[in-house]
Amino acid sequence: MKAAILSVGTELLFGQITNTNSVYLSQQLNSLGFDVMYHYTVGDNASRLKKIIEMAFADCSLVITTGGLGPTQDDMTKEVACEVLNDRLALDKEALERIESVFIKLNREMTDNNLKQAYFPERSEIFYNDAGTAPGFALECEGKTIICLPGPPREMVRMFEQSAKPYLEKRTEEKIFFRMVRTFGIGESSLETELLDLINGQTDPTLATYAKDGECSLRVASKRKTRAEAEAAVNEMIIRVKARVGDYIFSCDDENLSDVVAHLLIEKNITVSCAESCTGGLFAETLTRTPGVSEIFDRGVVTYSNRAKTDELGVKAETIEKYGAVSVETAVEMARGLKEKTGSRLCVSVTGIAGPGGATEGKPVGMFCVCMIFDGKEETREIRQRDINRTVNRNYFMLYMMHMIYRAICS
Amino acid sequence: MKAAILSVGTELLFGQITNTNSVYLSQQLNSLGFDVMYHYTVGDNASRLKKIIEMAFADCSLVITTGGLGPTQDDMTKEVACEVLNDRLALDKEALERIESVFIKLNREMTDNNLKQAYFPERSEIFYNDAGTAPGFALECEGKTIICLPGPPREMVRMFEQSAKPYLEKRTEEKIFFRMVRTFGIGESSLETELLDLINGQTDPTLATYAKDGECSLRVASKRKTRAEAEAAVNEMIIRVKARVGDYIFSCDDENLSDVVAHLLIEKNITVSCAESCTGGLFAETLTRTPGVSEIFDRGVVTYSNRAKTDELGVKAETIEKYGAVSVETAVEMARGLKEKTGSRLCVSVTGIAGPGGATEGKPVGMFCVCMIFDGKEETREIRQRDINRTVNRNYFMLYMMHMIYRAICS
Repeated sequence: MKAAILSVGTELLFGQITNTNSVYLSQQLNSLGFDVMYHYTVGDNASRLKKIIEMAFADCSLVITTGGLGPTQDDMTKEVACEVLNDRLALDKEALERIESVFIKLNREMTDNNLKQAYFPERSEIFYNDAGTAPGFALECEGKTIICLPGPPREMVRMFEQSAKPYLEKRTEEKIFFRMVRTFGIGESSLETELLDLINGQTDPTLATYAKDGECSLRVASKRKTRAEAEAAVNEMIIRVKARVGDYIFSCDDENLSDVVAHLLIEKNITVSCAESCTGGLFAETLTRTPGVSEIFDRGVVTYSNRAKTDELGVKAETIEKYGAVSVETAVEMARGLKEKTGSRLCVSVTGIAGPGGATEGKPVGMFCVCMIFDGKEETREIRQRDINRTVNRNYFMLYMMHMIYRAICS
Repeated sequence: MKAAILSVGTELLFGQITNTNSVYLSQQLNSLGFDVMYHYTVGDNASRLKKIIEMAFADCSLVITTGGLGPTQDDMTKEVACEVLNDRLALDKEALERIESVFIKLNREMTDNNLKQAYFPERSEIFYNDAGTAPGFALECEGKTIICLPGPPREMVRMFEQSAKPYLEKRTEEKIFFRMVRTFGIGESSLETELLDLINGQTDPTLATYAKDGECSLRVASKRKTRAEAEAAVNEMIIRVKARVGDYIFSCDDENLSDVVAHLLIEKNITVSCAESCTGGLFAETLTRTPGVSEIFDRGVVTYSNRAKTDELGVKAETIEKYGAVSVETAVEMARGLKEKTGSRLCVSVTGIAGPGGATEGKPVGMFCVCMIFDGKEETREIRQRDINRTVNRNYFMLYMMHMIYRAICS
């Protein structure tokens, strides 16, 4: 089945935001077996919106829109969808109650323009919004389906997963099953080289590699008559992949490295503390994104200044002077000081140069040192990452720490 | 003048890459005074490509394409451009020589398909490529202009800057200027209500609101004969906006709240430390994203466990028992303990319930307490945020702290 994705919002045409919704929806629709033929972006203008939807339906039987469902006057996706697919708007009581309850909770007055968000095409299936106030919907007419989702990516993704995806799955004949295998510590071209015969030799399952934010992922997908057949084919292929590059894999189900690590720590009841310099709290912040981590995470210290390293962790002033704040020696003393003050079973420290400034002779931007003490065993590393971007570096340092912990507690 | 941007490439429709070319070109075209009406993405298919270009020219006098200029069979943008604007391809000697010299330099044999890249519409102005092998071009016919640029962002940006931008500058009459005003603490519908007469009553400058990640932005844009006139109109409108909602505005130039705060702290040389519980290090991590912040940021402590609150900050066990770890009383003791150990001029603490778990009688998910001590003055707040999403809450708590600091150091 052919599909088009339509993003509504003048801010996209101004180049103020990047269209990540189209990327997400393309991936999802492709994996559901749809052929995505077009992406369109149009501003908050009813006649142009209508023209594009009509044009999309000339080729495609499914159009997914994002944006233009809010309470303000320039939100008009619903009205246009009705016009194109011959329906009219009617008040939905449940939607109204949900919006009212949000305002009661907030103890704010509900302005009249919010009422607009409780009106839907009469024949539509409404997708209520758990993550915001604007609900979405699906509307069918004579073999054409339009699905309208909110614009903010978090709300859109949630509504797609909860409502639109099940709605579409009922309407497709072949079933696609895929798993996303995630790795750390191997580059995309190396991963591809290791798996080249599998990637080129296969029509089903298919394998595709993606590099992203310091990690590398592998999508293993199969399209078969039944979901069970597709699943079996994917799982068999993953066994072959693991035999080649298993050392780098930390998840076969698209989990974040930090979630995998947090869940393992909770499951094994390993208490953790961390001491960070260059990452500025990113390690602690990322680990504590996982709910329930309070069971095992004792504390983090962000010792940004040299004085803080000495005060908080007992790093000797001589050590910093002799070897530098960014050195294996300082990282070791940070971890030892942390161990002494917290008694956590796993203590990890990091000090490095995130950039853009801070490089010195022999210590380039991207260099960092990590020390981990786990059940009395001390492990240290000095790494040189080639990137000069501060955000990229901090993220890589954090992932490196996570992966070091992952390997230690898995072995 | 109305413009459309057309991205050519099947990989975009698969969701394998994010379309950053459209973002860049939108920004550029808007600042040159063009109205970008549409973004389109289409695969490597001649008939669909032709259909989209024809449709774009129905409304727009300028179409910019990216991609589909390479040497392979599925690169067909040039052929289609000729078809739509009644021209034919002819060999360009300079382009041929440039391509040949690249292969000589590489010491590689030039395969026949590379010849394709030396053919251009006869009437076109060719844009030679300094960053790759595929040149681009501009072709005009009866008031319609198509500009075709290569797909790889690095090559595209370079060619736009060097060739396409000067080409377009000669052909535009009006200039656009805009500023992005950013606010915290006011919702999108309230912001719109406060400014409704300005939003509805104006044709130039125009005002548009955007909600994003706990903040709300306002775009003020003007299109005039000269950039100076447009700039003056925008600045005058911003004065009127400030008179209405100035209390919520932290930037008129699209800066992040955390960057604004970090720069102010550096500029005023105010040393800072923070103590976080529920945000898990997010405040420290966000503040330290700004390069140079090491001048004023001393340290952060992430006191996740109760024991850590007592050990690190001297929070009394009785306080936690009597009022709870999430209480104004605990927040105050955290900030006071931090002040005592660090002596930083500004100390800020937060404790709250990010969710999804952790709610207790009278303390729902989304509740948080902040205490700030600045030059001896203590300020505390207890806030109830409605959201149940952990990420949203943590982000909101962090922004709230940033904004509290912003107001304190600005006043």
